[in-house]
Amino acid sequence: MNENEHIVRGFQASAVAAGLKKDNVLDLALIFSEKEATVAGVFTTNKVKAAPVILSREHVGKGKAKAIIVNSGNANACTGNTGLNDARLTAELAAKELGIAFDEVLVASTGVIGQPLDMDLITGAMPGLVEALSPGGIPDAARAIMTTDSFSKISIFKGLAGDTPFHILGIAKGAGMIMPHMATLLCFILSDIGIDARDLKHALLSTVEATFNRITVDGDTSTNDTVLVMANGTAGNAPLSQADQMGFIDGLKSVMGELARMMVKDGEGATKLVNVGIKGARTPSDALKAARTVANSSLVKTAFYGRDPNWGRIMAALGRTGIVMEEQRVDIWIDDILIVEGGLGKGVEPEKRAAERMEKQEFDLTIDLHQGDYQDHIITCDLTHEYVTINADYRT
Amino acid sequence: MNENEHIVRGFQASAVAAGLKKDNVLDLALIFSEKEATVAGVFTTNKVKAAPVILSREHVGKGKAKAIIVNSGNANACTGNTGLNDARLTAELAAKELGIAFDEVLVASTGVIGQPLDMDLITGAMPGLVEALSPGGIPDAARAIMTTDSFSKISIFKGLAGDTPFHILGIAKGAGMIMPHMATLLCFILSDIGIDARDLKHALLSTVEATFNRITVDGDTSTNDTVLVMANGTAGNAPLSQADQMGFIDGLKSVMGELARMMVKDGEGATKLVNVGIKGARTPSDALKAARTVANSSLVKTAFYGRDPNWGRIMAALGRTGIVMEEQRVDIWIDDILIVEGGLGKGVEPEKRAAERMEKQEFDLTIDLHQGDYQDHIITCDLTHEYVTINADYRT
Repeated sequence: MNENEHIVRGFQASAVAAGLKKDNVLDLALIFSEKEATVAGVFTTNKVKAAPVILSREHVGKGKAKAIIVNSGNANACTGNTGLNDARLTAELAAKELGIAFDEVLVASTGVIGQPLDMDLITGAMPGLVEALSPGGIPDAARAIMTTDSFSKISIFKGLAGDTPFHILGIAKGAGMIMPHMATLLCFILSDIGIDARDLKHALLSTVEATFNRITVDGDTSTNDTVLVMANGTAGNAPLSQADQMGFIDGLKSVMGELARMMVKDGEGATKLVNVGIKGARTPSDALKAARTVANSSLVKTAFYGRDPNWGRIMAALGRTGIVMEEQRVDIWIDDILIVEGGLGKGVEPEKRAAERMEKQEFDLTIDLHQGDYQDHIITCDLTHEYVTINADYRT
Repeated sequence: MNENEHIVRGFQASAVAAGLKKDNVLDLALIFSEKEATVAGVFTTNKVKAAPVILSREHVGKGKAKAIIVNSGNANACTGNTGLNDARLTAELAAKELGIAFDEVLVASTGVIGQPLDMDLITGAMPGLVEALSPGGIPDAARAIMTTDSFSKISIFKGLAGDTPFHILGIAKGAGMIMPHMATLLCFILSDIGIDARDLKHALLSTVEATFNRITVDGDTSTNDTVLVMANGTAGNAPLSQADQMGFIDGLKSVMGELARMMVKDGEGATKLVNVGIKGARTPSDALKAARTVANSSLVKTAFYGRDPNWGRIMAALGRTGIVMEEQRVDIWIDDILIVEGGLGKGVEPEKRAAERMEKQEFDLTIDLHQGDYQDHIITCDLTHEYVTINADYRT
């Protein structure tokens, strides 16, 4: 993809190496909307919330913003009042340099927890960061927000609101701690569509539920998760009809869905992306609970890594969920290969073929409980030696 | 410890290599009580229950038994009616060879799920297994029930009921899938005490809650978990006073507690045993939930492996439990080293000392929530490269 495509009208972005991360890599990013933008946000459900999460929730509550400043290398979480002051100061520095109001700036951070942010580095970097703003700066911003990510994540969508073209562009970072209800997971969505704050919030909530809340890497949930969407109306569309609103949500789902899949694919140490689908559940919550339990089971995830269609572990995971299930009704597929029917293995031959499918980087695990009409899914990855290496060594 | 110490009056045991496991290793064990014994059992809470679990629950319901036959190498789980028939046939074969009733035989299995048991191997091995019974056979039985365990697990206790000496001996296997509410976890407790079935059941339940339900390895729960206790009255004690009953429970706790710690120590790939203690919780259930969430967090467990006092991950795990907590009240210790006070890190120096403590094979992680008076704990291990290796390769 040509980097020129990573532009949304009326938005500029930049990134610099402020020194928060080692080795002089990009670690401070700025996104700026030339016009005041409508804004909505979704934040971590963790009771331990990072300082920038607390600040940005307040600012998002006003429904309008012009800038997002993001640092990697330090999460500014578990940093008490010092951390809150630092998050505020970051917003103030950016606001002053941009010539906008303090409460028009949103802040996000990701990185190590429990260490104070080095504000001298941020103060020193701010003039250069603002000066570097340009419409083509988004890919740099996408790189600057990475932590253990192995590649930067950008997705775009083009749609029509009535006859007016609009664009949605998202950048995200993920890697570890990805789990339902989001994880360190930062995601910033920019659109030139004109939309009111309530509709934007509604669109964001339903999209997060269908995308980021359907992925998992390791079952942990971070203190810093933030999804922000800014829409600046540069497209010049008429007020959105219900069909237009649906079209916008579809676009959001496309962008956030692609970013979510990229996150799992880039899950710490992951070598495989697996869609765990549940069918035939008695209730919607049974379907989701079953999918989550299987998708988070360390034993199932190591079996994915070993390309082992070890359905006994899948049955055992289902059995401990507490959902309505009967062993003798369960069917299990790897892709389109039925390996368990009525709770019993189909034997060596299908398992051999299933193991071949599991050589692929992506495959489906589908479980039919035959208890009712509900279905759901969770996208997960395998649990690998590399996951342990990354997380045993992260701070050292 | 001298193997002669592994004897309880009135019990005999044996083990043979029936061929269920590769390489001609012990895989079939028999425990026999010369007198009819009082019996109690606790079984997996997983809805997917192995055939021997279903059978043994029935037989234990009668409160009396004389023998336990156990195979490793095959869990006889997810095997449908064939599996149930095989479990019954196993009990029948043992009963016939021992000259006792079918419903006096309890059955347990551990190993791969979803494959039919090779009954020819068990039939063929039965005469030799019974013939090999001897009072000194318990260590062999302890070895025969191992799967991925790296050492066999035996614990003994000697006490007094009134003036009469009694003994409690337990053998167990554990390794993977160890988690609250038990896991593949087989544990067999033999005592020469005289006790009635109701008291024995009560003693077992309270002891399981305090021991096996306070350990975790990987958060998975097996289909085959079984704890059986047989008491044959050979000690000749008078009916137990309340003090005697308490003394017996203390003995059970000693034996099962030691076996539980051995299991975590021998958790798949584990190199460290960590006691995660919660203090100051608002409710008992908050205390347990907090301990479990921290003890099962993959990020916390990899940090243990990396000897990294990464308290940010601990805070993040606490924050997602849903319990009553306030970040700014939390204190965290590694052993007696305070690394977090009032939600804030104590700095580099205490963390450095904490990291030194984490070099040890055993240490304590203690968290004071300062929300109330309740406490609880979970014993866990680290998450290592070796865990991934074992579980990615288990069936191959």
